[in-house]
Order: sequence, then structure tokens, then C-alpha cells
Amino acid sequence: MADEVILLGFWSSPFAMRVKIALAEKGVEYEYREENRFDKSPLLLEMNPVKKQIPVLIHNGKPICESTIIVQYIDEVWKNESPLLPSDPHERAQARFWSDFVDTKIYWLGRQVWLSIGEDLEAAKVELIRCFKLLERELGDKPYFGGETFGFVDVSLIPFSNWFYGYEQWGDLSMEAECPKLVDWAHRCRKKESVSQSIPDQQKIYEFLTEIRKKHSSK
Amino acid sequence: MADEVILLGFWSSPFAMRVKIALAEKGVEYEYREENRFDKSPLLLEMNPVKKQIPVLIHNGKPICESTIIVQYIDEVWKNESPLLPSDPHERAQARFWSDFVDTKIYWLGRQVWLSIGEDLEAAKVELIRCFKLLERELGDKPYFGGETFGFVDVSLIPFSNWFYGYEQWGDLSMEAECPKLVDWAHRCRKKESVSQSIPDQQKIYEFLTEIRKKHSSK
Repeated sequence: MADEVILLGFWSSPFAMRVKIALAEKGVEYEYREENRFDKSPLLLEMNPVKKQIPVLIHNGKPICESTIIVQYIDEVWKNESPLLPSDPHERAQARFWSDFVDTKIYWLGRQVWLSIGEDLEAAKVELIRCFKLLERELGDKPYFGGETFGFVDVSLIPFSNWFYGYEQWGDLSMEAECPKLVDWAHRCRKKESVSQSIPDQQKIYEFLTEIRKKHSSK
Repeated sequence: MADEVILLGFWSSPFAMRVKIALAEKGVEYEYREENRFDKSPLLLEMNPVKKQIPVLIHNGKPICESTIIVQYIDEVWKNESPLLPSDPHERAQARFWSDFVDTKIYWLGRQVWLSIGEDLEAAKVELIRCFKLLERELGDKPYFGGETFGFVDVSLIPFSNWFYGYEQWGDLSMEAECPKLVDWAHRCRKKESVSQSIPDQQKIYEFLTEIRKKHSSK
């Protein structure tokens, strides 16, 4: 029996994009179902009753939740194709560390740059750039965080390259001037089919997020 | 050459306790070095320059940071003794999900019960108990979250049983009345040598945290 793979996501979610990219890297065919954030489907509520959040991967009827956990699951189940995590335990731990750094720092600081104004925005901007520079140092001269090949940290971080243009507009900064190596890395990743087919147009994301920003700041 | 294993920790940290428990489960000998939170050692700053936090495991000179990442590393390196994560990918994903739930919910809500007063304390208390009940439902009638054997979620959660008495005192609640199965589970785990030798006296933790609570609320 062929595997039944369903992904519940939302088009602008960087977390759902991670799962799409990982599935594309592995060449796994799946059915994508777009969720409505304001009217969640009974399937989503049934499959992720604890967090009630996308993304959820449903593999042969069994749900897996939380994007980095899903990506690790995909890497373990479809292990022969394009390994995402390194095989060495220390390198795996390093990859998990930097992926966690993206979740705990980049996502939240980016959110503050997106939704804050004034002093809060300035503080978030400084800290976001500091964190991007730490990532740049970790990248070093490698083409990917995974080394010669696209890996787990690349999957975790690349969806946020969709926000680079937004960070520049909302934060009045230049990603190219601040973090040129990271911008190069993002271009390199976005040329990969697994990435380009999984992430939406940057301008569309920017417009969508800017609408939310306007509503937020008028509250 | 024998492995050189060093753990940098702080005695009251539930995150350092996780690492001690995992090392004890695996029977790994190690050197423990107590850190001073207000005067971090040069070794800690060198080994975890990004987060500058304990716990850090240093294995043959290489650092591994973040408690759940360290526990997974320990499980992968010393894989023949007392496996902590299940071998089935779906069960592994479930274990990672609940461990993440402990980090994102139990730790933070427990912190709010510890450091808040008034309405904030009441709201945190209600939510903490709701989350404990979700964990209780996940535990079901199994002796451990890992099933018949002590596993990854047990390692993640058991250090917080040290705070149960504190939650009761600060939050004016009864863990036994609210979550009797979870209290039984904690007693069961605490009888294990790997746990009892790795966690300090509950009363000592309570007194230490209550002192911090007093200073915090007088600010």
C-alpha cells in the first residue's frame, strides 16, 4: 500500500514551508490542505488537539506536530533520500542547536520587528541583526549550514528569507549591507527546486504581513 | 582512551538535572562542575558563547548545549544502555512533542506561578493545572511516559516534580487532588536511583525559590 501523506498548513507560515521543503527534498508525494486560521478544520482539531496549530503531517492516519519535529520525522522515515541531519551525533546536536536558535531567536525577533514601533522596534532590530551575524559566523565559508549539502538548519531558516524584504522595510535596514553572506546563502537555497516550489512570492508575503502590521499598530 | 565527560550545571536547574539523570541512566561517569550564575566561568563562556547558559556537556573537548539536545546526544552516543527515545519514528516524534510541551508550557507556567501574584498567579495556576492534566491523559495507565520503561519525556518532566511543593504553597493548590496520577508517577520515578541521585532535596529547592520569589515581589 502506498503511503498516505497529508499536510495541513497555511500558505504564509514559515513553519509549514519547512515541512513542504523537507518533503520535496525527499521526493515524497503528498496532499496539501490549506487551513483557515480563523476557522480551523475539524481534522486539524482532531489531529493536534493539544496545540491546535499547523503544520500537522498526517502519515497513514497518524499525526505529527511541530515543524522541527516533523522535519526530523521525515528525515527518519525517508532516510535514504537527501539526509537532512548529519549522521555524527555531535554534528546532529549542533544542527539541532542552530535550528532551535532560529525558533527561539530569529522567529521572535523578526516578529517584533514586524509588529513593533519606536524603541521596541529599534531594540528588536539591533538584536535581530546580532543574531543573523551569529548565524553568518556559523555558516562561515560553507555553501550551506549542512556543509556541502542543504540540511536541517537550512530547512529551518530558509522560510525566514521571505521576511528579509519586510525586515528591511519595517526596520529601515539593509540585509545586504548587514549580512551579505546570509543573503548569498538565501539566494543559493532559493535556486533549489525543493525550496522555490515550497515558498510563496516574497512580495506577496510582504504585502500580507504589512496589512497585519497596520491593523496591529492601529489597535 | 576513556571518554572525558564534563557537565557544567547549577544545582537547582531542572535543565541540568535532566542531563545528570540521562548520564546516570546510561551509567556514564563524568565530572560535574557547579557554575555561579552571577559569575560565569571562562569555560562556560567558551563552550556556550551563543547562549552563555548551563547546562553544557563537554564530551572529549566538544560542547553540546541545551538540555533536550544534550539528552538526545547522550542517547545517541551511549545507545546500547537504557534507550531513552523509542526506536519507532512516530513514537520518537510523540516523545519529542511532549518534551517540547514541558519546555514551552510547564516550565513557563510554573515560573509564572512562582514569580507572580494576584490575577496573573491565578491565571497561570489554572493553565498550569490544565497542562498537567493533558500530561496525565498522555501518561494514561502506563507506569512511565516511555511506557514500561523510563524514557525521554520522563527525563524532561521529572525535574519539575521538585517544584510540585512550591506550586502548592505559592498557588494554594493540591497537586494530589488535581493530578493524582502525575503525583504517583513522580513518586515512582523518584524511587529510581538515576533520579534520586540527580535531584536535590525538594524542601531545599522550595526554600531557595521562595527567597527569589520574595526579592522579586518586593521590586
